[in-house]
Amino acid sequence: MITIVKVGGNVINDDLLLKKFLRDFSQIQTPKILIHGGGKLASDLSLKMGVTPKMIDGRRITDEETLDIIVMTYAGLINKRIVTILQSLDCNAIGLTGADANIIPATKRPVNNINYGFVGDVNVDEINGSQILNFLSSGLIPVFSPLTHNYKTLLNTNADTIAASIAIALSSKNDVQLIYCFEKNGVLNDINDPDSVISDLNYPELEKMIKNGIIHTGMLPKLENGYNALKAGAINVKIKNSNQLLEHGGTELKL
Amino acid sequence: MITIVKVGGNVINDDLLLKKFLRDFSQIQTPKILIHGGGKLASDLSLKMGVTPKMIDGRRITDEETLDIIVMTYAGLINKRIVTILQSLDCNAIGLTGADANIIPATKRPVNNINYGFVGDVNVDEINGSQILNFLSSGLIPVFSPLTHNYKTLLNTNADTIAASIAIALSSKNDVQLIYCFEKNGVLNDINDPDSVISDLNYPELEKMIKNGIIHTGMLPKLENGYNALKAGAINVKIKNSNQLLEHGGTELKL
Repeated sequence: MITIVKVGGNVINDDLLLKKFLRDFSQIQTPKILIHGGGKLASDLSLKMGVTPKMIDGRRITDEETLDIIVMTYAGLINKRIVTILQSLDCNAIGLTGADANIIPATKRPVNNINYGFVGDVNVDEINGSQILNFLSSGLIPVFSPLTHNYKTLLNTNADTIAASIAIALSSKNDVQLIYCFEKNGVLNDINDPDSVISDLNYPELEKMIKNGIIHTGMLPKLENGYNALKAGAINVKIKNSNQLLEHGGTELKL
Repeated sequence: MITIVKVGGNVINDDLLLKKFLRDFSQIQTPKILIHGGGKLASDLSLKMGVTPKMIDGRRITDEETLDIIVMTYAGLINKRIVTILQSLDCNAIGLTGADANIIPATKRPVNNINYGFVGDVNVDEINGSQILNFLSSGLIPVFSPLTHNYKTLLNTNADTIAASIAIALSSKNDVQLIYCFEKNGVLNDINDPDSVISDLNYPELEKMIKNGIIHTGMLPKLENGYNALKAGAINVKIKNSNQLLEHGGTELKL
């Protein structure tokens, strides 16, 4: 079994939460992989440097200046902070972008109505799974920042998608479990009730909930990615609170 | 034979020079390792963010704020830029700090008269040479930024020293050549004459030149590190111009 964990931005911005999460992560007994999101550090840094974040329809546009800031924050500050904490926990982490060891090739998103700039869509079939397995079998714990590359430039890429893509790439030859960690207790029936966690969520049910407007739009990418991994052979996909990584609970996706 | 190349800051600040250098580096036929310096990007970023670089007696003090900026610049922007360019040249680079895969443990410099802050002195005996050799034998090209760690924090570390330390760690079981690349043609007899390159420089001769004030003080750390590597078994140590990596010339150190 290989465990792939994705941890989101809110945890990264909170030093205590992050350390508690990483302590739990270091206890996972299977070979493991961590993918971290970006969080608001990149926006903070942008503002400090006088670069106003560019948004169209609520989505960030990654121009050249923004890409530099994202690379500094994601691949530099956040990734190496996580690696250093894991090393202090005797967990032999290696921080990576998708360009390192050419593990995650991607395609720059084509310009249609909106030019998203330096944003990459993962070429799932080209993920270098055997390199990841090499690392795992030498006892290394890969820690990915949400960046890919297209042999010309780094590309800003959704961390949920990277986690699912790696799960898909490894599932053909391995048992893979994928855990999305964030600040809520799972997929909720009522967004105002933190205890209304749906423990098992199958796809037809999800479609009904989406139709009825019960699923928060922010959850949709995570769910979509999770189901993609499940369909491609991941044996277990969960969405749970980052401070309950080792405990029961959360939402398990079912086909 | 393993080739270890260190490239300095001035090359990194110049996009054209950097690309030419990396093109040459990618042509080296032996297994190879690159160590890059920091250059002035970190100071530029400091100023942009309103953080004044702290210096005592001309040496940078790495306080916590400065460490963050250095990590962003060295491990983020510069390291990943180099990795991405190398990947575009079909050179399977993997960007690392000394914390990644626990390759370069170091000791935080003790506070005596000056508190240098988060500055690390490499624990040469603890360098994880077998991990580096693993990478090389899987066809990866390690690219190190000048950061080490002490299991608590990242530490700012001289890139010349890292290059020599890796050379020393690998020399016990391998033939290693070490090349220091910078903006001059080698060690010069006359700093105002770029063609006055000393082609072979042995240690007694160097001591004489130092006594006579011929060696520029900026060269001393490079020379000291180079001789350390040579004494520890590196079979060849050169100091040469970064734009002549594949050509003859430069200064070869001799015992």
